[in-house]
Amino acid sequence: MTLDPVVLAERLIDCESVTPATGAVFDCFEAMLKPLGFEIHRFIAGEAPDGPVENMFAIRRGPEGSRHFAFAGHLDVVPPGEGWTTGPFKAERRGELLYGRGAVDMKGSIASMVAAAAEVPAEAGTLSFIITGDEEGPARYGTVPLIELIREMKAEPDLCLVGEPTSVNRLGDMVKIGRRGSVNMWINCKGAQGHVAYPHLADNPIPRLIALLADLDALVLDDGTEWFQPSNLEITDLDVGNKATNVIPAEARARISIRFNDRHTGAGLVAMVEDVARRHKGEVRAVISGESFITLPGDYSTLIAEAVKAETGLDPELSTSGGTSDARFLRAVCPVVEFGLCNATMHKKDEAVALEDLSVLQRIYQRITLAALKT
Amino acid sequence: MTLDPVVLAERLIDCESVTPATGAVFDCFEAMLKPLGFEIHRFIAGEAPDGPVENMFAIRRGPEGSRHFAFAGHLDVVPPGEGWTTGPFKAERRGELLYGRGAVDMKGSIASMVAAAAEVPAEAGTLSFIITGDEEGPARYGTVPLIELIREMKAEPDLCLVGEPTSVNRLGDMVKIGRRGSVNMWINCKGAQGHVAYPHLADNPIPRLIALLADLDALVLDDGTEWFQPSNLEITDLDVGNKATNVIPAEARARISIRFNDRHTGAGLVAMVEDVARRHKGEVRAVISGESFITLPGDYSTLIAEAVKAETGLDPELSTSGGTSDARFLRAVCPVVEFGLCNATMHKKDEAVALEDLSVLQRIYQRITLAALKT
Repeated sequence: MTLDPVVLAERLIDCESVTPATGAVFDCFEAMLKPLGFEIHRFIAGEAPDGPVENMFAIRRGPEGSRHFAFAGHLDVVPPGEGWTTGPFKAERRGELLYGRGAVDMKGSIASMVAAAAEVPAEAGTLSFIITGDEEGPARYGTVPLIELIREMKAEPDLCLVGEPTSVNRLGDMVKIGRRGSVNMWINCKGAQGHVAYPHLADNPIPRLIALLADLDALVLDDGTEWFQPSNLEITDLDVGNKATNVIPAEARARISIRFNDRHTGAGLVAMVEDVARRHKGEVRAVISGESFITLPGDYSTLIAEAVKAETGLDPELSTSGGTSDARFLRAVCPVVEFGLCNATMHKKDEAVALEDLSVLQRIYQRITLAALKT
Repeated sequence: MTLDPVVLAERLIDCESVTPATGAVFDCFEAMLKPLGFEIHRFIAGEAPDGPVENMFAIRRGPEGSRHFAFAGHLDVVPPGEGWTTGPFKAERRGELLYGRGAVDMKGSIASMVAAAAEVPAEAGTLSFIITGDEEGPARYGTVPLIELIREMKAEPDLCLVGEPTSVNRLGDMVKIGRRGSVNMWINCKGAQGHVAYPHLADNPIPRLIALLADLDALVLDDGTEWFQPSNLEITDLDVGNKATNVIPAEARARISIRFNDRHTGAGLVAMVEDVARRHKGEVRAVISGESFITLPGDYSTLIAEAVKAETGLDPELSTSGGTSDARFLRAVCPVVEFGLCNATMHKKDEAVALEDLSVLQRIYQRITLAALKT
């Protein structure tokens, strides 16, 4: 069966699905996979404010004992923001481009995956889709419970590809073989409120918070590792909320974000920041979004690079740069690599994908699938 | 004519007059002064948000060429806040205390001034009241235009007493002969927004603001002077307002407040902070609330100390501590000193004054007036 990935992408874009996503976009997606022989497992998890989230595991089993290759991704999209030329939730072709929220991140990639799957014979092996309605949000009720389901079904894949938009300037120029870890921390210094004219009767927490943050800002976490850039700490917010010019406030708060490589763990960094905070009588609350991971260059990355080269002529860079993705969860199941469309317009107004790229990506995915099922 | 300062204080408290004040409380006050032979000049100045503010200059002229002594103060009060035992705008005597917003700051003092004035014969000299409806707020439309009126009328007093609650533990233990200056500054560091995963594409302004504030916090402005405590800089607010954990913000803001002695001027301090800010690419906006001033110990403070001692047995401390007051404006007209009730409950819930203190203060004010008119 031959499917046009552009038409599939249009159908998915037309279903508004801002995080957390449920319903229509999954109905639309199910209608694409069912005719291809996939067995569908849909479920809704969580409650407001981080849910409800819809998730789908779709599997087409190959012959007994065959290899299992999985596509992973998300059908939710970030909010459209303002200033779009046409409606963000009505796909529109203009010239060589297809416009709409999710065009590259990542309904376009999912359309190419489906079109690729349609070309892969069922006898080639087991093929599956691990698709969530919350990758762009807190991701609490998304890929995590999907993995639980897959484990219960004893349907763990051998290899997994996440369709995030990893290409930078041209489709195929970058593959992500790992991601840095990510941890956010909320730092709090408490003091005692008072009048600025009587500072000896108050305890201003701001100078302590500033000294604490200066110490954090001076930390050099590392110089990078073989496959990772240096870990980085950013102070992302300061907050006191004191409207009165003549009042010394009782509390001062800050937030930091650390993106870290394989020299660190989230817990280790939290302990490091807590040590610094303690010296300034500060308190720390931390949320570890994900640990760093790497699928070391080898057979799997070679297989992907060869497929990319065959269709685009490019030798993709194997990178670990950028933000987090659901690969941080899937890496616990099997080797995982990310490859997808160009990310120039992702999360922006007038998000768009080249029509041609959707077909090229379909062919790359097809090559990857066939090669992965043979390994 | 003999008046009971407690009854007068009750009448003033019963007129709700949160800053900026106009209307009823001035009607009530005028009704007290008119029978004493005062000529009343009332006017309303300013518009929202800092106005309208009502002001009153009341004068009873003595014989040609006599000395002129002025009482100054305010009829506005700070907002009541929560948790009062009885209504803040309904004066209530319980035991030895009179409760109500303004009991000590400073309707009680004004009541004692009026009762004192009633005992001073018109032949003793010229007596006046310089009373505003905005001392607790921005004070833009209060004592400043009152002074303009007084100058136009060529009715400048020779000596002035502001009835702020300067006493600390017992009525009479402290007189304020000066005040520190006050300046607030808003500091701003600008950068370029970006994603925390791509810090090289952004310019985080927070580390610059922190380094700037650390430099300011390390400044030692002075060690104090003969009559003043050391100047002090407090950082009173931090503000970035960035809700997104993965975003590097474009701007970071802070606010500082400096209370300074006679070693500094407001403009000099602004220039000093601007120098520090420039080193970190920060910008500064400043509002000078008032310069420092001192009425050096001499005949006037001696006269006040003697009146206090005669009625209370205490030798008052001559101090320049604490916040600002309208004395910062009046000092341009004539020597000015502040003396009034105990400040323990000012600006708090259940503000209260000892009934006895109102009578003692009346007698002290009476002694001061008579002595001042003789000098």
